[in-house]
Amino acid sequence: MTKQAKEILVAIIGAGGVGGHFLTQLATLVNQTPALNVSLCYLGIIDRVYWTSDYSAIDLANALDILAEKGQDPISLEQTIDYLAKAPSKVILIDNTSVQSIADLYPRILGSGISIVTPNKKAFSGTYDLWKEAFEAARSGGSLIEHECTVGAALPVLSTLRTLIAAGDDIHRIEGVFSGTMTYLFSTFSPVDGPASTARWSDVVKKARELGYTEPDPRDDLNGMDVARKLTILARIAGLKTESATSFPVKSLVPQALETVPSATEYLEKLPAYDHEMDELRATAEQHNNVLRFVGSVDVQSGALSVGLRQLPKMHPAAQLVSSDNIFSFYTKRYGDRPLIIKGAGAGGEVTAMGVLAGLLKTVDRLN
Amino acid sequence: MTKQAKEILVAIIGAGGVGGHFLTQLATLVNQTPALNVSLCYLGIIDRVYWTSDYSAIDLANALDILAEKGQDPISLEQTIDYLAKAPSKVILIDNTSVQSIADLYPRILGSGISIVTPNKKAFSGTYDLWKEAFEAARSGGSLIEHECTVGAALPVLSTLRTLIAAGDDIHRIEGVFSGTMTYLFSTFSPVDGPASTARWSDVVKKARELGYTEPDPRDDLNGMDVARKLTILARIAGLKTESATSFPVKSLVPQALETVPSATEYLEKLPAYDHEMDELRATAEQHNNVLRFVGSVDVQSGALSVGLRQLPKMHPAAQLVSSDNIFSFYTKRYGDRPLIIKGAGAGGEVTAMGVLAGLLKTVDRLN
Repeated sequence: MTKQAKEILVAIIGAGGVGGHFLTQLATLVNQTPALNVSLCYLGIIDRVYWTSDYSAIDLANALDILAEKGQDPISLEQTIDYLAKAPSKVILIDNTSVQSIADLYPRILGSGISIVTPNKKAFSGTYDLWKEAFEAARSGGSLIEHECTVGAALPVLSTLRTLIAAGDDIHRIEGVFSGTMTYLFSTFSPVDGPASTARWSDVVKKARELGYTEPDPRDDLNGMDVARKLTILARIAGLKTESATSFPVKSLVPQALETVPSATEYLEKLPAYDHEMDELRATAEQHNNVLRFVGSVDVQSGALSVGLRQLPKMHPAAQLVSSDNIFSFYTKRYGDRPLIIKGAGAGGEVTAMGVLAGLLKTVDRLN
Repeated sequence: MTKQAKEILVAIIGAGGVGGHFLTQLATLVNQTPALNVSLCYLGIIDRVYWTSDYSAIDLANALDILAEKGQDPISLEQTIDYLAKAPSKVILIDNTSVQSIADLYPRILGSGISIVTPNKKAFSGTYDLWKEAFEAARSGGSLIEHECTVGAALPVLSTLRTLIAAGDDIHRIEGVFSGTMTYLFSTFSPVDGPASTARWSDVVKKARELGYTEPDPRDDLNGMDVARKLTILARIAGLKTESATSFPVKSLVPQALETVPSATEYLEKLPAYDHEMDELRATAEQHNNVLRFVGSVDVQSGALSVGLRQLPKMHPAAQLVSSDNIFSFYTKRYGDRPLIIKGAGAGGEVTAMGVLAGLLKTVDRLN
């Protein structure tokens, strides 16, 4: 960090699971690191927004209270962009939401010279055009995009991939378990240790939901789209022009007949009728002394992407994941047969917020 | 990489196992990336040196041939520093050696405004004073130090640790197997899979030496100092003022009576007489269904560092390493019980050279 850092203004959208932790972490860090010289001028959530018309600093430690007391009805994103574009200093927008309509405006935001730091996957795993427009707009606007934490939260996944490529390595294949929810489900349903599991799939899903390991509607995890989005981002950074997160085979774990069932409750009620399907898959895996894991894989040389269930030997590093850990294996020319592996918690408010904060620090450093 | 990068001059010392690969990788990259705008003005090896008095570019693709044909007897390091300090552009010195006397001059080099990129551990794992002087000299000289590849070669170990700290996480403990040589020796002598090994320790060491997995004198690996140096670097980045790599307990695997035996050959001849000691350690581990691994560990909270043999359960990630892989586990406040893990080849000319190259790119980017 440069000692005499120029002031940089920060605008934050979102104060939920990630955003709440982020505000706390940022307030602590700014308090401990006066040289950092970043200040908050805008804080917005879905139904409320607070900003300073003269871009003066909002007290970070009390930002949520100030928003509650003095906040107004939300203004449009267009108005927000106009306000930020007129700021007297460089501006970083922190998008701590997963909202598509904000992601759609990234090209316009970046083109206005506003940098973006975000865990929101939507702009990077949507259409290839949106991806291209965002990065082109950043170039023309002199702004920066930092989205390391869209994949693996605070794990150094995208930066490692980018460094390997920049240093001239050839990426052959990237493979792993990119969803903490899937790790929890399958390490419970098809464990490596102990006697063969007799757990019923529907019970494991219900339990995971009760523990908060799934989205309120578990189908949002089980349809595989979260993994497909992360795989799309990895593939694009590896140089593929992947058209979208639905342009390659994704094996959904939601029985087709339950896809259109209106409520999560009804889905969970009807799920036991399909337990035999998962039982059969598990039995087949056990016959070969394997376990089931939900794996994402991109073969960079052939351009093939796939997301789905796989049988893995028990000694496979991805077989041994527990809790909500992720694992990313990079097979490259220089690493040969034994991949570079990064493993750890890939979700959760606290580590994801830390990933956003690390991205903010990197961006501040590069803007200075 | 900025598009209109300023020219940056590169001086390279060393063209051995790492340095040779580095020259090849750099030549390819510069050829493919004209925007990079780095050029070589100085190449030195132990008994020969070539430099351009007007700092004009040496043809990278033929640098070793040019050195062989036109090189002269080496000049002193002081003369080299004077030459580089007078350069018309910013200069990065690549120290691809493991020479202590070069490391000792880092403060002077950095204080002269010359940046350093290096896999040479000596300056960072020597006395704490040398470490402090080097970083202070860089601050006063406006130069940069990049030594990511001193630990784990091209694995993102130090950058990950620095990012966690910068983003406000508390590092509790760092632990792992930091030596590819030790991984090879113990995954052979005390394997996870198959029947209990009956391999003799002295045979495993001999075989490892024949395969080039150890230094010419295996005692240089087996005394534990390579691991102790890496642990010292990790501990210092984690905030400890570790006095040196000999200021904490390091369990040498060289029997005391063989420490002073003059030649590697004699050491290997006499080693079988000590096989029973390693047999007993392995038998004890097997009784508990464990394996032996050579582990480095720093408890950041208590400040305790240790390097030595440990019994590990077979499912422990460090137990399952093969070939010459390294593993680094970061236990932190935000990651809780399940550490952030980085694993992969942590030695070898090609990946270490890639680590140096990645460090060069990062430094060029920051100097621009």
